[in-house]
Amino acid sequence: MLVEINRTEIEVRYQETDQMGVVYHGNYLVWFEIGRTKYMEQVGFKYADVEKQNLLSPVIDIEISYKKPVQYGETVTIETWLSAYDGLRITYGYKIYNEAGDLSVHGKSTHVVVKKENFKPVIIRKVNKAWHEAYEAIIKGAS
Amino acid sequence: MLVEINRTEIEVRYQETDQMGVVYHGNYLVWFEIGRTKYMEQVGFKYADVEKQNLLSPVIDIEISYKKPVQYGETVTIETWLSAYDGLRITYGYKIYNEAGDLSVHGKSTHVVVKKENFKPVIIRKVNKAWHEAYEAIIKGAS
Amino acid sequence: MLVEINRTEIEVRYQETDQMGVVYHGNYLVWFEIGRTKYMEQVGFKYADVEKQNLLSPVIDIEISYKKPVQYGETVTIETWLSAYDGLRITYGYKIYNEAGDLSVHGKSTHVVVKKENFKPVIIRKVNKAWHEAYEAIIKGAS
Amino acid sequence: MLVEINRTEIEVRYQETDQMGVVYHGNYLVWFEIGRTKYMEQVGFKYADVEKQNLLSPVIDIEISYKKPVQYGETVTIETWLSAYDGLRITYGYKIYNEAGDLSVHGKSTHVVVKKENFKPVIIRKVNKAWHEAYEAIIKGAS
Repeated sequence: MLVEINRTEIEVRYQETDQMGVVYHGNYLVWFEIGRTKYMEQVGFKYADVEKQNLLSPVIDIEISYKKPVQYGETVTIETWLSAYDGLRITYGYKIYNEAGDLSVHGKSTHVVVKKENFKPVIIRKVNKAWHEAYEAIIKGAS
Repeated sequence: MLVEINRTEIEVRYQETDQMGVVYHGNYLVWFEIGRTKYMEQVGFKYADVEKQNLLSPVIDIEISYKKPVQYGETVTIETWLSAYDGLRITYGYKIYNEAGDLSVHGKSTHVVVKKENFKPVIIRKVNKAWHEAYEAIIKGAS
Repeated sequence: MLVEINRTEIEVRYQETDQMGVVYHGNYLVWFEIGRTKYMEQVGFKYADVEKQNLLSPVIDIEISYKKPVQYGETVTIETWLSAYDGLRITYGYKIYNEAGDLSVHGKSTHVVVKKENFKPVIIRKVNKAWHEAYEAIIKGAS
Repeated sequence: MLVEINRTEIEVRYQETDQMGVVYHGNYLVWFEIGRTKYMEQVGFKYADVEKQNLLSPVIDIEISYKKPVQYGETVTIETWLSAYDGLRITYGYKIYNEAGDLSVHGKSTHVVVKKENFKPVIIRKVNKAWHEAYEAIIKGAS
């Protein structure tokens, strides 16, 4: 299935706030993680299954811009899409909207897939052909 | 070495606060963890070495009472001691004092040692005789 | 509405795991918090509204027992109920079940309501009569 | 005092790991925060004092690149420096080294200073002249 964008809603947890009275800036990275997990599930794969193969998919780069703080009591919407894929590196894009629909945060994260025992990167096609083909089709369809 | 008590200082991290303007209640469990790690090191053992033997020491019980909130900008002192040990279960006691020296939190946590592959409890003497003998000596000395 | 129990489902977040390969023990306190928030909403109140009155409801005591670790990839169920209420202190009980339906954790937490500016406890009836009456009715109905 | 760089050591906390067996990627943002707090203290200012003036200094941009994962049991070194300052925006640079001295992570974060009540940015010179002059002198000295 070609997935252009995943939209996932999250209720802010009290624990996610800090003494500024808004969500702690580091917690948006946790929401990005939920976004890309849900994106992947919408495409038909589960990240938990990747790890069952003794593979990991660590982050190698993150960029994040903060536009408007989010408060406890709000439900936010995370939009996640595949913004680049070259067979080795996966880049996801994210936009997070507050409950009023204003853009709160946007960013992107780049990942590789590595072997659990030594953190050596692998060619994704060689370890999970279906995942590779799905992401390749999405990137080609998007261009 | 007989260790009656370990005292460890911690500077409050901004990230540890919540929108109450004080340290989030769950973070005292992280400080307990630092306290027992330091206690163990003072006795002569490193928790990281326990895990290198493919053992884990999960928590099975925690009790915690909150007396006075701690704020960002303070340095707190954690007191940790061994309050019970029967060869299978280890119980640590904790008192955390704010910068003014008032009692902020007190509590205790009980742990077992388990095999990493199946979470089955082990008799501590059988997997780490020196650690067992040290804790047994402390408990006997305390009574 | 008389609420005997609230059941809330939570998907484990990757960030909630630690290197034991299971959910970090401190994160169950965050899930307790979600459980009591949902319980309160089911009764008809929002914790966010309590704070809008310049009141806070800090934890004063927590007990938690760990029976079975939960893993990433699972959806857990939190059961929350009101286990004691005396007009000043609120005690919630909790049971958390893993995806297979086994009891993972149980515990309780006790809370007061305080003024935000000085953390002085208040009589709940005096600051939120409807909330007081709802909880009193639940406790009387339960006995 | 002209401060070129601040070096701060941090012992990895068990709670900071995830099931990859290494430090969770989001936690480096917490370490960046500790780095810039220590940098600021070395220059002669305390972030806690900034907030006592009803000001906050939220993050508006973060970039972070991950080179080598850090493990529990290690002590890392954070290097923090002032990389840009224009009177409104403060940019810090960071390098984090693992215990063996290898570069683990590098990044930067940009901050503004805002009024607590409305999150409106302020000109730093107008709210804290000494801090402004110190940062301006450092930037001029560095160029």
